Amino acid sequence: MKLVRYGEPGREKPGLIDAEGRIRDLSAHVPDIAGAVLEPEGLAAVAALDPSSLPVVDGTPRFGPCVAGTGKFICIGLNYSDHAAETGATVPPEPIIFMKATSAITGPNDAIEIPRGSTKTDWEVELGVVIGKTAKYVSEDDAMDHVAGYCLINDVSERAFQIEHHGQWTKGKSADTFGPIGPWLATRDEIADPQKLAMWLEVNGHRFQNGTSATMVYGVRFLVSYLSRFMSLRPGDIISTGTPPGVGMGQKPQLYLKAGDVITLGIEGLGEQRQVCVDAA
Amino acid sequence: MKLVRYGEPGREKPGLIDAEGRIRDLSAHVPDIAGAVLEPEGLAAVAALDPSSLPVVDGTPRFGPCVAGTGKFICIGLNYSDHAAETGATVPPEPIIFMKATSAITGPNDAIEIPRGSTKTDWEVELGVVIGKTAKYVSEDDAMDHVAGYCLINDVSERAFQIEHHGQWTKGKSADTFGPIGPWLATRDEIADPQKLAMWLEVNGHRFQNGTSATMVYGVRFLVSYLSRFMSLRPGDIISTGTPPGVGMGQKPQLYLKAGDVITLGIEGLGEQRQVCVDAA
Repeated sequence: MKLVRYGEPGREKPGLIDAEGRIRDLSAHVPDIAGAVLEPEGLAAVAALDPSSLPVVDGTPRFGPCVAGTGKFICIGLNYSDHAAETGATVPPEPIIFMKATSAITGPNDAIEIPRGSTKTDWEVELGVVIGKTAKYVSEDDAMDHVAGYCLINDVSERAFQIEHHGQWTKGKSADTFGPIGPWLATRDEIADPQKLAMWLEVNGHRFQNGTSATMVYGVRFLVSYLSRFMSLRPGDIISTGTPPGVGMGQKPQLYLKAGDVITLGIEGLGEQRQVCVDAA
Repeated sequence: MKLVRYGEPGREKPGLIDAEGRIRDLSAHVPDIAGAVLEPEGLAAVAALDPSSLPVVDGTPRFGPCVAGTGKFICIGLNYSDHAAETGATVPPEPIIFMKATSAITGPNDAIEIPRGSTKTDWEVELGVVIGKTAKYVSEDDAMDHVAGYCLINDVSERAFQIEHHGQWTKGKSADTFGPIGPWLATRDEIADPQKLAMWLEVNGHRFQNGTSATMVYGVRFLVSYLSRFMSLRPGDIISTGTPPGVGMGQKPQLYLKAGDVITLGIEGLGEQRQVCVDAA
């Protein structure tokens, strides 16, 4: 299934995308795409519905973040060997973990605010993993049972805040609108192999990132197990698994976002996002 | 006011501590100590109640975390000059920001789990600041208007996870039970000066930390303003403002927690906590 949240910010309703690409309203059946709805039983109950019995949503409403109630927005640093190289870093012997503020979460096509004082706002297309079942000390063998599904993420990053303001990375990852997620949550059954997904990102129509999750250093299965050694993962938590090469910091000369720039990005099976950059008010 | 949440984990009710130290039930008036209740209007409505009109809670129920609905648990690193020295670091020219997982939040007297594989679980008494009004690009002059109040925090830390597992600090700060908060949220009016509070921590009756918030490098007012440049602060968010000297890592030889150890800690005006250490199941 492709699960969505649609409508105005803060008032999104749950829905799904049917086989014809139309939004169907789920609000008579689930309160939101969050919490218990993401658990195996919750997803099974939604899957048991006949999509043709659900009301078609007219028009083209805004997509909100595809998941609500996210308690943790966990990011993995330098998880593509060639991205590590372009930033002058080496692949770490264990995953680098940092947090993005949950208040950074926004809809997939909402404007991205360039923060006040920013000189180095950058992009990162990433594969997001949405947790569907509490995970604490889970083995790699069992890890995938704790995954509800996947979504597209732009891990927007301010490099000066991240690197030049005396630690830690969360400082450059957490501004409002720095976490567009969606358009949809693809349930795990929709994605045959999360380590074989094409992914790309363009700014003003120029393709900067053109990668595949096949070159991820630490894969989804390992990451869920690894993270669960250090913290409990809970339904609705999101893991953003790192970005392939082609970020602005890696260009020669470096290139960063400014108001008016248009970012488009996508991952195979997970849809596309489009964001216009604006200056923070 | 001293606002509390009492009862079994996940089923806490809101309450307040009256002048005689008894818990009074607030559940007929507010849904929880969270969100809009923490905003200026929400706190004013609670303050307008006559405590003697509220039901007295019998017995000695468990205290839960004194705030619910926390979206971000933000910590400030090395924010006491003498603590920085004991860890071999220097005071940074700007505050170090890292995140603690919100899933680490627990009641002030709940057991602390030593994580599997831990060799260096450590303690940190800290002054917590609870946000009461959304803060984005707020000046130092206005910063305190965004503070609902204060609470006692033990920023439990696994030093090997934090430092020896290839970054970032969040990895050693986020295990379940690593964030006891409470017993109460002291509203801002209760604390004449947050930069003049005695604070202490003992393990098995031996006093290891004996400090004061007067030696904090970056004070509450500055921190709220500074953080609001990098992310929006929202009602219920918590800022843990750093620890004075005396952590286990700073002992010679270093000393860490093990199952059976008892931690007691307190901050002037914010009450006390007591935790027994257990091995994670």
